[in-house]
Amino acid sequence: MSSTAGKVITCRAAVAREAGKPLQIEQVEVAPPQAKEVRVKILFTSLCHTDVYFWEAKGQTPLFPRILGHEAGGIVESVGEGVTDLKPGDKVLPMFTGECRECAHCKSEESNLCDLLRIDTERCVMINDGKSRFSINGQPIHHFLGTSTFSEYTVIHEGCLAKIHPDAPLDKVCVISCGFSTGFGATVNVARPKKGMSVAIFGLGAVGLAAAEGARISGASRVIGIDLNPRRFDEAKKFGVTEFVNPKDHNKPVQEVIAEMTNGGADRAVECTGNVNAMISAFECVHDGWGVAVLVGVPGKDDLFKTNPMNFLNERTLKGTFYGNYKPRTDIPKVVDRYMNKELEIEKFITHKVKFSEINKAFEYMIKGESLRTIIAMEDYESDHIGETTLC
Amino acid sequence: MSSTAGKVITCRAAVAREAGKPLQIEQVEVAPPQAKEVRVKILFTSLCHTDVYFWEAKGQTPLFPRILGHEAGGIVESVGEGVTDLKPGDKVLPMFTGECRECAHCKSEESNLCDLLRIDTERCVMINDGKSRFSINGQPIHHFLGTSTFSEYTVIHEGCLAKIHPDAPLDKVCVISCGFSTGFGATVNVARPKKGMSVAIFGLGAVGLAAAEGARISGASRVIGIDLNPRRFDEAKKFGVTEFVNPKDHNKPVQEVIAEMTNGGADRAVECTGNVNAMISAFECVHDGWGVAVLVGVPGKDDLFKTNPMNFLNERTLKGTFYGNYKPRTDIPKVVDRYMNKELEIEKFITHKVKFSEINKAFEYMIKGESLRTIIAMEDYESDHIGETTLC
Repeated sequence: MSSTAGKVITCRAAVAREAGKPLQIEQVEVAPPQAKEVRVKILFTSLCHTDVYFWEAKGQTPLFPRILGHEAGGIVESVGEGVTDLKPGDKVLPMFTGECRECAHCKSEESNLCDLLRIDTERCVMINDGKSRFSINGQPIHHFLGTSTFSEYTVIHEGCLAKIHPDAPLDKVCVISCGFSTGFGATVNVARPKKGMSVAIFGLGAVGLAAAEGARISGASRVIGIDLNPRRFDEAKKFGVTEFVNPKDHNKPVQEVIAEMTNGGADRAVECTGNVNAMISAFECVHDGWGVAVLVGVPGKDDLFKTNPMNFLNERTLKGTFYGNYKPRTDIPKVVDRYMNKELEIEKFITHKVKFSEINKAFEYMIKGESLRTIIAMEDYESDHIGETTLC
Repeated sequence: MSSTAGKVITCRAAVAREAGKPLQIEQVEVAPPQAKEVRVKILFTSLCHTDVYFWEAKGQTPLFPRILGHEAGGIVESVGEGVTDLKPGDKVLPMFTGECRECAHCKSEESNLCDLLRIDTERCVMINDGKSRFSINGQPIHHFLGTSTFSEYTVIHEGCLAKIHPDAPLDKVCVISCGFSTGFGATVNVARPKKGMSVAIFGLGAVGLAAAEGARISGASRVIGIDLNPRRFDEAKKFGVTEFVNPKDHNKPVQEVIAEMTNGGADRAVECTGNVNAMISAFECVHDGWGVAVLVGVPGKDDLFKTNPMNFLNERTLKGTFYGNYKPRTDIPKVVDRYMNKELEIEKFITHKVKFSEINKAFEYMIKGESLRTIIAMEDYESDHIGETTLC
């Protein structure tokens, strides 16, 4: 048992105190884990668009002060009562959605939408007692997605932690905990292209490029990337995207452009932007008879998906996916194993690395569109030593 | 070779000469089959809503005089040049859609939308020469769906004929050629419920009841029938429908009623009405995480399917199907074999039998909603002898 078990740990956290204002590195008190909870020492975290979205908090109920962060890797420091699957020293990836293994969804082979631990962007507390484990000078600080990984220590429900290979390098595999798996799983678990098929990918950010990685692994013959930003095309080539379409370059709907390029339609499409018009295009661009389109990007709450129902009757399929249909605890360790077996090229997604004290730089890189993933090292190693830590 | 091969056959046909007016039994000349064509002696045909729809011809370009009919069974009389899979005497089911076995769709395992022979409701001629094989006093009579089975003899492309078991009783299995397979295949090939699942079926006509038969065969624990006509509920019980919902009885959307009945949603839904609001309800009534809805009914051409895209993101799937995803020549003989093996209860669908000379009665029964399927015997046996013919 670690010397800190059962005690409050005081450590550094990057606190979001106001929408859109730089995070502040502060000393935060992290309470011990309660029943079914685990306290984790975060070693590396990365920044995802979802963090930026809730930091900007546009059109949202403000939930500050809050510790953001959900894409990360760490080591179990101590466990609460009734935690049986994890022990101090285990290497884990925090998960923004969970797997209780007891509800109808967890018991279904087809679903990963756990009733108990499904993502809840408005929940700011632990479900055990409805309270926060973080405080500064006695004032509670809000949790985020049940993970709050922008802290050297954090408390997470055991159902939201994937125990991974003990040799996995956390400064790389941390990106598997969110963005990579969301896009990759959408292709390999849901769209399921067969060898030689064409795959259209809408949106060439990290999630879309992970979907492209899924197409590459599946043996797709053509991977057509669609994006409004032509700067993304060069980078996307590294991810196996073979052709590019910028809807701005055409005076007809992009679904027609793709149908012409593919003799009637792409075999599969994966929508990673969340724009409802891109969703409609992704569905309508797939081939009749066998085309499957998969929605990944999250739409606005008042958006309406509209199409002529004959597009379905002509044997097209439309599916949505959450987190690439992966069950967090059961499946994510296997994704890490595929990386360890050198099947997956995770490194391509990591474009920047910064120290924890420079976390706001990661926000800048993402907002400017310069980064795919910026790795944030919680211990302030020299930047060029990141990845050589003896801890992972 | 039959004595009629290569010659024009003069026989009786029921000719639709004007929209909505009774068919007239007339003497029609049926030309010999050309390349890739087959002349078939029809023994039994049944009436489907699609015949009635094109007979009423509301909002359509009138295409009269025309010989309707597409759900039938017969015997090959003679074959044209290049027909290798069929010979005189073979027992066949005419198919309103075909399988050329050479196009991309036929070569795909996933599609049955043959490029060459896909259903075409406006085509009135044979594809070989763009002409009709039917004439009366030298005036051509239009074909319908490439089948025109309301004639004692008809000419059909070889790709639109399924060669079936020589012992199959044509007065029963004729219903497999359209309505039964459309609904049954939608459930067993597309919705694919697992044992113990709940299945919601929208529309309890023949197609919907065939979808229910698919649910029964699949071991569904609950089959929920939705229809605006409560008279259909009693009959539906014979088809394994366990619960009934009449949307008129509720002051909330039917998808909410079904979600309440099923602890969150049906596992599968099959939409057999073609009403776009029923399509939306069928999709929105399935359970998040694993629900699959399948559209079978054909919508109006200006209909728009609308839903909040989060309904997809929460891991629901929407598929459309045409002809139950069956490849006509390859798969339909196997459906007939399942009937011959006593797995399928086809007889339940046959509510009426009439002589060919009384074909207009079949229209009356269907329009009044009294029949599921009326079998029309082309040879004027006494009604009570139908099924005992020595020909099949």
